[in-house]
Amino acid sequence: MKCFCVNTVKLGLFRNQPQEPKEEHDVAQAGINKASKGGVIYGDYLKLDQIVTAQVLQSELKGNKIHDEHLFIVTHQAYELWFKQILFELDSVREIFISGHVRDERNMLKVNNRIHRIVVILRLLVEQFTILETMTALDFYEFREYLSPASGFQSLQFRLLENKIGVPHNMRVPYNRQHYRDIFKGQDGELLLATEQESSLLKLVEEWLERTPGLETDGFNFWESLEINIFNGLRTEEQNIEQMSDSEDKEEMMAELLKQKELFTSLFDIKRHDHLVSKGERRLSYKALQGALMIYFYREEPRFQVPFQLLTSLMDIDMLMTKWRYNHVCMVHRMIGSKAGTGGSSGYHYLRSTVSDRYKVFVDLFNLATFLVPRHWVPKLNPNVHAFLYTAECCDSSYCSSEDSD
Amino acid sequence: MKCFCVNTVKLGLFRNQPQEPKEEHDVAQAGINKASKGGVIYGDYLKLDQIVTAQVLQSELKGNKIHDEHLFIVTHQAYELWFKQILFELDSVREIFISGHVRDERNMLKVNNRIHRIVVILRLLVEQFTILETMTALDFYEFREYLSPASGFQSLQFRLLENKIGVPHNMRVPYNRQHYRDIFKGQDGELLLATEQESSLLKLVEEWLERTPGLETDGFNFWESLEINIFNGLRTEEQNIEQMSDSEDKEEMMAELLKQKELFTSLFDIKRHDHLVSKGERRLSYKALQGALMIYFYREEPRFQVPFQLLTSLMDIDMLMTKWRYNHVCMVHRMIGSKAGTGGSSGYHYLRSTVSDRYKVFVDLFNLATFLVPRHWVPKLNPNVHAFLYTAECCDSSYCSSEDSD
Amino acid sequence: MKCFCVNTVKLGLFRNQPQEPKEEHDVAQAGINKASKGGVIYGDYLKLDQIVTAQVLQSELKGNKIHDEHLFIVTHQAYELWFKQILFELDSVREIFISGHVRDERNMLKVNNRIHRIVVILRLLVEQFTILETMTALDFYEFREYLSPASGFQSLQFRLLENKIGVPHNMRVPYNRQHYRDIFKGQDGELLLATEQESSLLKLVEEWLERTPGLETDGFNFWESLEINIFNGLRTEEQNIEQMSDSEDKEEMMAELLKQKELFTSLFDIKRHDHLVSKGERRLSYKALQGALMIYFYREEPRFQVPFQLLTSLMDIDMLMTKWRYNHVCMVHRMIGSKAGTGGSSGYHYLRSTVSDRYKVFVDLFNLATFLVPRHWVPKLNPNVHAFLYTAECCDSSYCSSEDSD
Amino acid sequence: MKCFCVNTVKLGLFRNQPQEPKEEHDVAQAGINKASKGGVIYGDYLKLDQIVTAQVLQSELKGNKIHDEHLFIVTHQAYELWFKQILFELDSVREIFISGHVRDERNMLKVNNRIHRIVVILRLLVEQFTILETMTALDFYEFREYLSPASGFQSLQFRLLENKIGVPHNMRVPYNRQHYRDIFKGQDGELLLATEQESSLLKLVEEWLERTPGLETDGFNFWESLEINIFNGLRTEEQNIEQMSDSEDKEEMMAELLKQKELFTSLFDIKRHDHLVSKGERRLSYKALQGALMIYFYREEPRFQVPFQLLTSLMDIDMLMTKWRYNHVCMVHRMIGSKAGTGGSSGYHYLRSTVSDRYKVFVDLFNLATFLVPRHWVPKLNPNVHAFLYTAECCDSSYCSSEDSD
Repeated sequence: MKCFCVNTVKLGLFRNQPQEPKEEHDVAQAGINKASKGGVIYGDYLKLDQIVTAQVLQSELKGNKIHDEHLFIVTHQAYELWFKQILFELDSVREIFISGHVRDERNMLKVNNRIHRIVVILRLLVEQFTILETMTALDFYEFREYLSPASGFQSLQFRLLENKIGVPHNMRVPYNRQHYRDIFKGQDGELLLATEQESSLLKLVEEWLERTPGLETDGFNFWESLEINIFNGLRTEEQNIEQMSDSEDKEEMMAELLKQKELFTSLFDIKRHDHLVSKGERRLSYKALQGALMIYFYREEPRFQVPFQLLTSLMDIDMLMTKWRYNHVCMVHRMIGSKAGTGGSSGYHYLRSTVSDRYKVFVDLFNLATFLVPRHWVPKLNPNVHAFLYTAECCDSSYCSSEDSD
Repeated sequence: MKCFCVNTVKLGLFRNQPQEPKEEHDVAQAGINKASKGGVIYGDYLKLDQIVTAQVLQSELKGNKIHDEHLFIVTHQAYELWFKQILFELDSVREIFISGHVRDERNMLKVNNRIHRIVVILRLLVEQFTILETMTALDFYEFREYLSPASGFQSLQFRLLENKIGVPHNMRVPYNRQHYRDIFKGQDGELLLATEQESSLLKLVEEWLERTPGLETDGFNFWESLEINIFNGLRTEEQNIEQMSDSEDKEEMMAELLKQKELFTSLFDIKRHDHLVSKGERRLSYKALQGALMIYFYREEPRFQVPFQLLTSLMDIDMLMTKWRYNHVCMVHRMIGSKAGTGGSSGYHYLRSTVSDRYKVFVDLFNLATFLVPRHWVPKLNPNVHAFLYTAECCDSSYCSSEDSD
Repeated sequence: MKCFCVNTVKLGLFRNQPQEPKEEHDVAQAGINKASKGGVIYGDYLKLDQIVTAQVLQSELKGNKIHDEHLFIVTHQAYELWFKQILFELDSVREIFISGHVRDERNMLKVNNRIHRIVVILRLLVEQFTILETMTALDFYEFREYLSPASGFQSLQFRLLENKIGVPHNMRVPYNRQHYRDIFKGQDGELLLATEQESSLLKLVEEWLERTPGLETDGFNFWESLEINIFNGLRTEEQNIEQMSDSEDKEEMMAELLKQKELFTSLFDIKRHDHLVSKGERRLSYKALQGALMIYFYREEPRFQVPFQLLTSLMDIDMLMTKWRYNHVCMVHRMIGSKAGTGGSSGYHYLRSTVSDRYKVFVDLFNLATFLVPRHWVPKLNPNVHAFLYTAECCDSSYCSSEDSD
Repeated sequence: MKCFCVNTVKLGLFRNQPQEPKEEHDVAQAGINKASKGGVIYGDYLKLDQIVTAQVLQSELKGNKIHDEHLFIVTHQAYELWFKQILFELDSVREIFISGHVRDERNMLKVNNRIHRIVVILRLLVEQFTILETMTALDFYEFREYLSPASGFQSLQFRLLENKIGVPHNMRVPYNRQHYRDIFKGQDGELLLATEQESSLLKLVEEWLERTPGLETDGFNFWESLEINIFNGLRTEEQNIEQMSDSEDKEEMMAELLKQKELFTSLFDIKRHDHLVSKGERRLSYKALQGALMIYFYREEPRFQVPFQLLTSLMDIDMLMTKWRYNHVCMVHRMIGSKAGTGGSSGYHYLRSTVSDRYKVFVDLFNLATFLVPRHWVPKLNPNVHAFLYTAECCDSSYCSSEDSD
């Protein structure tokens, strides 16, 4: 990696002088002089003494060095490095939501970019399995006993990640009949408990969706308008079908129509929604669901373009987490087989059970695809609402203040 | 990462007991008891306290924390982690060659797999640029001054990697008119010097190719047979062309034939070879070149199948290193522009100059494509040689001894 | 794509003249003259008039052109193009096995390369979902009605592919309570039936594994030697545990030992094997299973290196097919939701059920990981066998004859 | 591929009824009845009879079937399929710009998504080289003569693509001293000429950038404000440096400052700009360049978020095209060597010369990175401008009219 200083401005000319240019300057100047007398160098900056000395082979310690253990360690360390980065992005996004900065829509660029960055990292992590797959079951067999009882199940960062995105602890598959948090002791366990109690990304997005402009019942009243349009539409369809002469087609169409009616009746039934939430089949509040559907339908309105991208990226995260889990299962099958019939909780089977919609945090965003309707059933924006949607909120504030959220 | 101990055998039953089963057993037993009383756990095993605490933002130290610096650091650390792994594989392969274990052809599986693993890692590293590309020039601008004078040019591991593969120091593009090694002081500089003097992968492969069975002048004498066949073939072609009636086609064909003659004359001219070597346009010895071409032509012989794969993987390494360099250039262009016209050594232009065949270590393997001939010009193996090729060398040795090379 | 003729040799000099150089020559000469007078050009060669005119949007035909339908068509066509290529490679490999050419071990290079090529293509096909994922559920909704009743379930090539690899028809998940073949009529149905009756890759690999040198009971007798070693080993372990003083550890270890004993007893029990085969949990014959395990244990022997790579690639194919299925499920969930609760056979749920070990053809190769043992339990090759393994079979035949299998 | 109709709504219930619901309905109804009586099926829909029969091996026609030619054909066909898709997206985006629909900012979602889709496709095309790389130089040699004189240089779609993005014909590297268009005859040549004369994406983006709100000299007057701020800033820096006591540092800093002054003087000098344009080192008009820099600096303003993403995607396209070219060069080097010293126009060297900034259409967007300045030098938006940026233009128009641009 040679990019980062080949062209570094050596002087303070372009320093970012926050707030007070005059006084700031002297401080920065001092810094510059130090820099030109030495400054930071690559290896120190990256703390490579910590990074590249962290590969200690258990097999070597136990007097039987196995070559492939090195790969095993480095791969897991690379995963943990990237988990750290994902957590960093995730925390910064959550902070923008929690602090209310998200109401200044200028901050949506940051939110969107950082969530997108998580997507790009996850894509690499899925790809990264190809490296560990160069190790065969036979290579792994040579050192796997030395690892006991260490387990990837003990990855604190991965559990934090799940919690912060919003995997609910009561949806987790138990591990050897244990609660997942029981694996972690002391400070780590507390950290996990804290993340269960903090606002997850899911919760924060939910609150944000509930504020979607256009949902107000004393204003545009999207939800009621939509309900009216849909049932009008269905009624017209029904009449058209009734006018057909009797045939197998007619019967099929009528049956399908009834299914649709039932489907949409369920959509507008808050009790049904709450029931699904209680079973874990839905995760968003009823109001948030409405907001999400509104963004779907009006995604082309300038004010909804970036929110729509955000919803898409959130589904990407879910999908990539699930692909990561699945690739992981595949690799484990390869490394240790299925151990079918030998009893005992099999790693392979435990992991397989986690590749499930139970772990899909934004499952509602996927399932909304079930409730799409023809474009001409979507309530038309009246001129006022239209204008409204074009006008973004602005907290107040000078230009730079949006930076403070960092 | 949850794979690695979900199914770990907790007992010593399947320990790998090297050499002396009896005495060894007690030692391992002890280890087992300890393990069941605690043993290694995930975070300690991976030394995560070193890994995930190594992200110190210079911008934060200087009172102006810039969010994206964290990504910058983690990305470079991930590169360095993988460089460590590549060096580990490379050293182990070089050791197999240096120790002579490569003469026991059972070790070719290891050589091949480890070289292939390097290929797979490099493929990920090329891909990994997509992550850093989520940072815009504007994001980078915010903290790049703080990095001065750190530079990716100072990555020791990358230079070691180049040296150990076989980038010759006299082919390197100077950096700001400095020799590359002058950037490194003390121990690091010595380490680099040492790798220049050790046998590079190129040198070791060269020696191995020189031993290709079938090259012996008192045996199959591949090179002389090939020369005879080729010139016989060309002569026949020439006669065929001469018998054509005059036409533009005939002239074109004759011109092309002369070019081919010239080309092959150069191939069998050792002086010309040495001249190209002196200019750096060829890197392998004349004998090694012959070995490589022999492996190309007889790649289907059982004994040459794995060597052929090895040559292919070596080209993959070159190609991926060069793609890595090119992707790096692209990213730098994006981050800092070309600075065209502003004078001073531009990072972009320096890096572009390293995307060159000068840095292709196994360039000869690519260029051999120029010397392919029709299959019926390739000397036929006589029954003896045929048999010979089927019979691999075996150093002697008990089965497990091949393991000692680790 | 500009590569393929930029450097094409324009003359006949380097033609591949099969067999009879003299007579052949005139024929080729004629061809050359034609070529220089015109010859094939890029667009004709690739039949681009067929390829790039094959995008007919149903939505456009029905008077309501929807932009994204074009992507939908092109993506599926790209998949079908690559399926064609995979079938081509697969057929050529099966032909090498069926014709017996595989006994000439020179042909293993081809077998291996072509199977590896399938792996590389499948890897791209998994990746290719990222393109279709740029289409949102809302985009898809706009034209999906026009597609009815076309269904990806009707992809003939995909079903052929499954059959030729070896998905057994009785393991398939029924589709809307129908046998998969009932979807296909006339010639297509017959084609599918034929592939069910032909030798699948699984069957051919099975036969090849059964011939693994070293399995002969009157020779090295790998299986019996292994059984003896394993049970000797287990007995020694048992005695060691018995000598320990009583403790929880001791009990645990003894329990684990019993499990291992049971496991290995099952391995050497042909009745148990046949029972698992009848349930579809194993697919290979007992003898073939032995051959595979032998190749695993002796993978470093020169003669087993390429076979070992082949087994690894076969697992890659299974794994990538399964990842392809899983990525497909993810995309469908995104496009149409889960339709949970609406009744009717859901596409999403049908597809999910196919991401199962039932569709893993080479599941035995994965599960062998369960039966690994310490290296010193593996029977030592005696000098004779050792030599034997070094000596490949050679059908007879001149060098070029191996080409006939194409 | 099984996704697309597993869940297709069989009825007309959810048809998209454009405009007149009543009359339309009957038409669609008819269509439905036909559909239920048969409708389109998978293979017909995708015209697979054209797609999977388009693989005709020249080597087979000439009596010497070479296995790997099939891969060669399929790979190129897959490239052409995707080129078709890219052209389709590109044309639709150009149409949105040309028709003026882009002024309705609701259409920016489409523009952005389609440009992004091109990025995703190009990413796959770069990846796709891994497949052709499974063919060795030796495999290619066996059939490459049969292809003469077909050449990838003759890919019409690739040339159209370059032209429509905006590769200027006078920047092209000549091919064997010929103008690129001379390779194409008749209709194809005319098509290419037409695309040279039409508005390229570059031109259309340029016009759009020139309209960036905030550039008006009688309004916010971004450019003049920026010039004033920058030179004020530089003057302050100069004074600070002058007050330092003499030292090497001071001299260095002053030299650097002068460079910066020169750099920015050049930025605000329209003559210098026009000179760089005449040399092809800049491509955008002076006004468009200002617009781009304005979008960079104010990218967080809601109205600029999506435009900023668009500029980023345009750079992605350039970068991926260039990576595609580079990967292509690597593959050609591998297939045919460099033919160094044999004279004649080498494919390898021709292709290498096209991996150049000459072919980077949006090079200005990269080079703007050179002109970044500290955030506090960027002119503050006054409340009016601020409000202005929040208010998007809206052509007029009912909600659905934005769809007409398709």
